[in-house]
Amino acid sequence: MPRIDGARLLADLRRMADFGRYKTGVHRPTFTAEDVESRRWLAGRMREAGLDPVIDGIGNVLGRAAGDGRRLLMGSHTDTQPQGGWLDGVMGVIYGLEVARAFRDDPATAGLAVEVASWADEESHYLSFLGSKSFVGELSEADIDQARNRDDGTPLRAALARAGLSGRPRLALDPARYVGYLEAHIEQGGYLEAGGKRIGVVTAIVGIFGYRVVFSGVQNHAGTTPMPIRKDAGVALVRFCNALYERFAAISGPRSVWTVGRILLEPGAPAIIPGRAEMLLQFRDEDLRVMERFEKALMDLAAETNAAGPCPVTVEALSRVPPTGMAPAFQEALAAVAEQTVPGGWMRMPSAAGHDAQILAHRLPAGMMFVPSIGGVSHHYSEDTDEADIVLGCQVFADAAARILRG
Amino acid sequence: MPRIDGARLLADLRRMADFGRYKTGVHRPTFTAEDVESRRWLAGRMREAGLDPVIDGIGNVLGRAAGDGRRLLMGSHTDTQPQGGWLDGVMGVIYGLEVARAFRDDPATAGLAVEVASWADEESHYLSFLGSKSFVGELSEADIDQARNRDDGTPLRAALARAGLSGRPRLALDPARYVGYLEAHIEQGGYLEAGGKRIGVVTAIVGIFGYRVVFSGVQNHAGTTPMPIRKDAGVALVRFCNALYERFAAISGPRSVWTVGRILLEPGAPAIIPGRAEMLLQFRDEDLRVMERFEKALMDLAAETNAAGPCPVTVEALSRVPPTGMAPAFQEALAAVAEQTVPGGWMRMPSAAGHDAQILAHRLPAGMMFVPSIGGVSHHYSEDTDEADIVLGCQVFADAAARILRG
Repeated sequence: MPRIDGARLLADLRRMADFGRYKTGVHRPTFTAEDVESRRWLAGRMREAGLDPVIDGIGNVLGRAAGDGRRLLMGSHTDTQPQGGWLDGVMGVIYGLEVARAFRDDPATAGLAVEVASWADEESHYLSFLGSKSFVGELSEADIDQARNRDDGTPLRAALARAGLSGRPRLALDPARYVGYLEAHIEQGGYLEAGGKRIGVVTAIVGIFGYRVVFSGVQNHAGTTPMPIRKDAGVALVRFCNALYERFAAISGPRSVWTVGRILLEPGAPAIIPGRAEMLLQFRDEDLRVMERFEKALMDLAAETNAAGPCPVTVEALSRVPPTGMAPAFQEALAAVAEQTVPGGWMRMPSAAGHDAQILAHRLPAGMMFVPSIGGVSHHYSEDTDEADIVLGCQVFADAAARILRG
Repeated sequence: MPRIDGARLLADLRRMADFGRYKTGVHRPTFTAEDVESRRWLAGRMREAGLDPVIDGIGNVLGRAAGDGRRLLMGSHTDTQPQGGWLDGVMGVIYGLEVARAFRDDPATAGLAVEVASWADEESHYLSFLGSKSFVGELSEADIDQARNRDDGTPLRAALARAGLSGRPRLALDPARYVGYLEAHIEQGGYLEAGGKRIGVVTAIVGIFGYRVVFSGVQNHAGTTPMPIRKDAGVALVRFCNALYERFAAISGPRSVWTVGRILLEPGAPAIIPGRAEMLLQFRDEDLRVMERFEKALMDLAAETNAAGPCPVTVEALSRVPPTGMAPAFQEALAAVAEQTVPGGWMRMPSAAGHDAQILAHRLPAGMMFVPSIGGVSHHYSEDTDEADIVLGCQVFADAAARILRG
């Protein structure tokens, strides 16, 4: 089996962390100067690894393999959350790079073809999964025309021009070229650490359903309006939300999560009865049946609330992304290698966060592997993973890639 | 008894509504050009009514009576809420003016001395009860230095200078000069209308206790953080708020009101577990014992929440204004006249909103009278009162004033 070079792997990860270094993490939003510079550096490293790199018209970096055989596509993203962690995304890209080098350096694997990608803007600075969507054919020119930076409103077209990418063609997936897609990532949660495991074999990427729930009341004077005749949209929201928490808890799957991240009362003054109230609700699960159960509970509660009064409620679905199952053959390859490498030290688990693999899975068999996050922390500059876990993960990833390519 | 002139009264009210007219209401925030102009016009009408008007260094307009005897002070305010109603405040001032004219015109009452005031900024554009607080000696120069416009931050000093009031002395109450203070106002609620009554005799102005309740949680990823280990400040707030509604309802007085006017989750993003949550709570009652019961229920619930975890809660008192009882003799005078004028067509009731009378009551016997608000609406340009009710109310007010002055 190919031996990965742990020192070379860690050195490349540390070099990438120089682009936009922020405290112990990295601040490298998509198409900032640091992000563009890091993509050029990455393309250079791909060339040194024997790959033929290209940066396409949406910012994807793809290191292509010579030859005719079917390839395994590997990758993740190199943009980061604001003031984010040093491994979130980048690790999976550098794993791919290291696997390509390890395969090349070992006569036993030199014939196996791998390609490595960094998908642009996984972190949604302009548009969620921008690069992987473009690659699989789910991003139109009109989508690009409309996309703007979520923080400062910069048009995506202007950002692409500034990055020197205007007019370049966009890469388009030819499914016949690949046996599938494999992605490694930090877990971003605490299940591996809590279970004392070093490798996670991802069974599915959870689905995310999101809703805006709006209550209509009657705005009025908080002193002179008697309680019995009030139509307080805030009271309606609090009661609804409290009941929803109880109903969801009663029908939850083992790893279901649900969150109300925003509540807004209008006009929001201490002496005015809220005339309108809004909340943003989101839930995630690996099992579509659980998600549909949650949605039904939400809709039932809304119907009961509307029947009972006094404040009508509307439920608007904002997103409805179903769970994405990972290819069973890829799960088995990862599981077999993990058991061989760290017997009993791995587990199967869903991914509770979204990843480019769920987009690639629309057109290719896809698999994912996790390494532990210290303290379960991510989306923060203090995010980290033990070096030994980083190196072990890359070896498992390389061995699984070889196993998949050998069929 | 003196006869008020309904046509003259309504004409003055309509003239005042020209200053800052907005749709069917008035937009006349304190110390805007329209407000300053209306004060000058009012001072002129006071002079025509035989009073000696002065606009003092805080914007109070006081029409003083000649002679030595003890006077009855009457008034209210002429600033308005943004896009507010045409009678809120102004009606009580013009009632005073009309009573002064009616007394002067009738030999039987010409010897009775009344003075009429428009207190500056009752509506809190700069500082709640600014003018009446100044008059009773509860406003320091430092308070004036610090006060700023709640909307645009203009310093009060600058607004006073622009209004031409800098350097003028501020009027100071001499309690020996007055038998007391009488104020008429629109009800701003729907109790009179619902009960088919035309006059309200105010028993007390409700107290207002206000609180900021803050929950501390741990901000985290809404996908990767399992439900059992979450410390969601938003969940803690919703549960607390729901329990509080139930406890308050169980210990409420007949007219208690309580309101959560603002809820804030931080950071307020759909995919982030709130790390901090805040709500503004306010309750009002005419009975201090009920208010203390509410406060105890709030503090008990906070203590239970802190004992149970996982999100600690703090309760900060923002305001703690106790109820203000109206002088019994003034209530009796108003009640006797009301029963004589509209037998059975009046009722005793608390004021659920704050009024200058609660400030004057710190140093003078004070009384208040209400007329009905159509649909209970106020703080909106559509606020209105039937003309017949406006005229009837002024007659009752005049007769009660005469009764009080005659002892």
